[in-house]
Amino acid sequence: MTPLRIDLAPNDIPTHWYNVVADLANAPAPPLGPDGKPVTPEAMGAIFPGPILEQEMSAQRWIAIPDEVRQIYAQWRPSPLIRALRLEQALGTPAKLFYKYEGVSPAGSHKPNSAVPQAYYNKVAGTQRLTTETGAGQWGSSIAYAGQMFGLPVRVYMVKVSYQQKPFRRSMMQTWGAEVFASPTDRTQAGRNALAADPDSPGSLGLAISEAVEEAAADPAVCYTLGSVLNHVALHQTVIGLEAKKQFDKLGLYPDVIFGPCGGGSSFAGIAFPFLADKMAGDKRAQHLRCVAVEPTSCPTLTQGAYAYDYGDASGYTPIMKMYTLGHDFMPPGIHAGGLRYHGDSPLVSQLLHERLIEALAVPQVATFSAGVAFARAEGIIPAPESCHAIRAAIDEALRCKERGEPRTLLFNLTGHGHFDMASYDKYLSGQLEDYAYPVEAIRQSLTRLPKVG
Amino acid sequence: MTPLRIDLAPNDIPTHWYNVVADLANAPAPPLGPDGKPVTPEAMGAIFPGPILEQEMSAQRWIAIPDEVRQIYAQWRPSPLIRALRLEQALGTPAKLFYKYEGVSPAGSHKPNSAVPQAYYNKVAGTQRLTTETGAGQWGSSIAYAGQMFGLPVRVYMVKVSYQQKPFRRSMMQTWGAEVFASPTDRTQAGRNALAADPDSPGSLGLAISEAVEEAAADPAVCYTLGSVLNHVALHQTVIGLEAKKQFDKLGLYPDVIFGPCGGGSSFAGIAFPFLADKMAGDKRAQHLRCVAVEPTSCPTLTQGAYAYDYGDASGYTPIMKMYTLGHDFMPPGIHAGGLRYHGDSPLVSQLLHERLIEALAVPQVATFSAGVAFARAEGIIPAPESCHAIRAAIDEALRCKERGEPRTLLFNLTGHGHFDMASYDKYLSGQLEDYAYPVEAIRQSLTRLPKVG
Repeated sequence: MTPLRIDLAPNDIPTHWYNVVADLANAPAPPLGPDGKPVTPEAMGAIFPGPILEQEMSAQRWIAIPDEVRQIYAQWRPSPLIRALRLEQALGTPAKLFYKYEGVSPAGSHKPNSAVPQAYYNKVAGTQRLTTETGAGQWGSSIAYAGQMFGLPVRVYMVKVSYQQKPFRRSMMQTWGAEVFASPTDRTQAGRNALAADPDSPGSLGLAISEAVEEAAADPAVCYTLGSVLNHVALHQTVIGLEAKKQFDKLGLYPDVIFGPCGGGSSFAGIAFPFLADKMAGDKRAQHLRCVAVEPTSCPTLTQGAYAYDYGDASGYTPIMKMYTLGHDFMPPGIHAGGLRYHGDSPLVSQLLHERLIEALAVPQVATFSAGVAFARAEGIIPAPESCHAIRAAIDEALRCKERGEPRTLLFNLTGHGHFDMASYDKYLSGQLEDYAYPVEAIRQSLTRLPKVG
Repeated sequence: MTPLRIDLAPNDIPTHWYNVVADLANAPAPPLGPDGKPVTPEAMGAIFPGPILEQEMSAQRWIAIPDEVRQIYAQWRPSPLIRALRLEQALGTPAKLFYKYEGVSPAGSHKPNSAVPQAYYNKVAGTQRLTTETGAGQWGSSIAYAGQMFGLPVRVYMVKVSYQQKPFRRSMMQTWGAEVFASPTDRTQAGRNALAADPDSPGSLGLAISEAVEEAAADPAVCYTLGSVLNHVALHQTVIGLEAKKQFDKLGLYPDVIFGPCGGGSSFAGIAFPFLADKMAGDKRAQHLRCVAVEPTSCPTLTQGAYAYDYGDASGYTPIMKMYTLGHDFMPPGIHAGGLRYHGDSPLVSQLLHERLIEALAVPQVATFSAGVAFARAEGIIPAPESCHAIRAAIDEALRCKERGEPRTLLFNLTGHGHFDMASYDKYLSGQLEDYAYPVEAIRQSLTRLPKVG
């Protein structure tokens, strides 16, 4: 048999996460508070427990993964690295195409890689309850799962329109014991303000963040969790790339180009950073390595945004962070890859792009679904719409390899399965899916409202 | 770390399926045609290709798995055997609880174990197109996937009410390139008759079978596929139990009791038959082995049915088979475990029960969901409603072990994930799920309409 799936043993689950901060040429720009000064650990301590804060600010290269976390990871990790041999054949490409499949987790995506340690550190820090926000529910379901694994109650503020229209991930969160509220609620001041302004408010991710943060800030026993963007989330996701490196070692191969979908940046960071470490360390194999963050043309943060300080949320409640941004009040069109509808990006991913260590690429929606269907028909797995962005870019690269006769080794992060996204596939297959015009004017306008710094 | 997941290498994918017919004390009763005589291979050849027919009638103990099939299996097989340590702790049981997780396949269930070889054998036999029927879509999606893997077009007749109300698996089939029709259609005589009688007919599984069989019988280039009940389907599913045996060998353990959900019987057969082989061969470890087929109280084929010849479909178009049956026109209540709503059962499973080599148990719906939620909260994986039946029985056994202080080793077949069944969980969690009264009178009546034999 041609080996298709490269598995590792449970003992191959990484013992440490990789922190790319240790290898950056320039120290990351600090998050700034409302006073324009770097946010203190004490201020952040109102919503995050100590161990998470330490990781968020750490410059240590390797950070040990607690045994309790590895024990939970062991239920689905190491995740498989799979060679897309049938897709290669369908494309007629000389390229070797590999994907790291994160859809094997209980929540069906990569999100539990960070949800589990976040729940664990909160548990040991004595946190009594977790809060978070969620849009379609990828992150909310992952933290509901992780909280349940450590006996920690979880409250999720779910954007009301998703709560009503996409009930399945809500049911998933509730199955795992979480309380789920349709945001805006009357439980928080932010929610009450929104309801006073519009009793029929459909909610927004920015507003849900405000509600979750408000509840955490008001109660010392409650902490807030976030599923992407921040350094500690990117850190936790590096298990993906660290495992992939071991899997390539088993094959005696090394990737030439790595593709990851990029919304808040953590899944891209997860697969790319461990390989970038080699490149930054001067490893010859990684000398010409390219890492490509793939985003939607309708929310083109890395390719069309400004590299500037901006708020993490839409309402301007969070500290400001140096990152690529479309402006915190930019409202992306309602594309089906909900996980990529974010105005900003991970500060670490942003810095690496700014320093030209990685690349970014924007792809339009219909082309991503066409790639997803081609992938499903060749490889069997139906990918999440977010993952389809990386697949589109990888297929295009494989076709370029075909033109040029280059047998390159390509790797992409298949961040999740699309079993909750069949309505989107249905729209694509019935020809109802649309591309959005590049939101050039909206971006230009929202960028005029960036916060002033210094 | 406590080992939770017992993995095997790709080379451990079984090279042969196990055929329990070879070890039966009595030869299986043959299927009979309308003339009351055993159905000839020639008659069956109208809808099945040669290699499938051979397997259906074979008494050979081991049947080689083609490399092409193992190559496809290798994308997700060997599937993990997982120790439910957290569930054991939650129950406070001294029992060791293991589950074989089949939800890792591209379709999310065990069904591709048979869909892949069925598609393969049809491909090599020169079949030009496959037909099948499907209710909620578990089997239809699996054969759509498998057909796509071998470049074989697939037509699925999907019960109209499911087609309209459960669109997600329909979209899944279409993503894999299958044509899906809402049955009854005007494409077949059976469909046209049904539409003439009732233009708004919601369809039924029996009617969809009739349409799929009619299309296959009318065109020599078209063959029919079935996802359970028949011997060759049970045969293909034995990869589950064969792998589980290797996994228990690695642990130096052997199960005392095995539980499988049982509708048409193939997933129960898949996990149980390879262990039963040991028992029938006099293996000391299997001397006291119990294998328990778990079914819904609302469709209690094995526990309340008659062991008699009956039709495989509701309309009486198929040959009659010796099996436990509730009567071919028994209409089970609309429970959420759609895969267990079948009036009959695998003739092989039925014979083993009749000969007291296995046991059967019926459990009510609400109790199965309560077990599913307990499992999800302990183990993370949200199980399919069908799987919840086996979980209920395993949990009850684990609790008996606790009462008696018996550290027994229990194994159950976690046949699929519940990501397409969240609406059912939602009903359970919101207290809207009901148990159905034991359909005693309906069974009594339908059993009076069994076909006359001899």
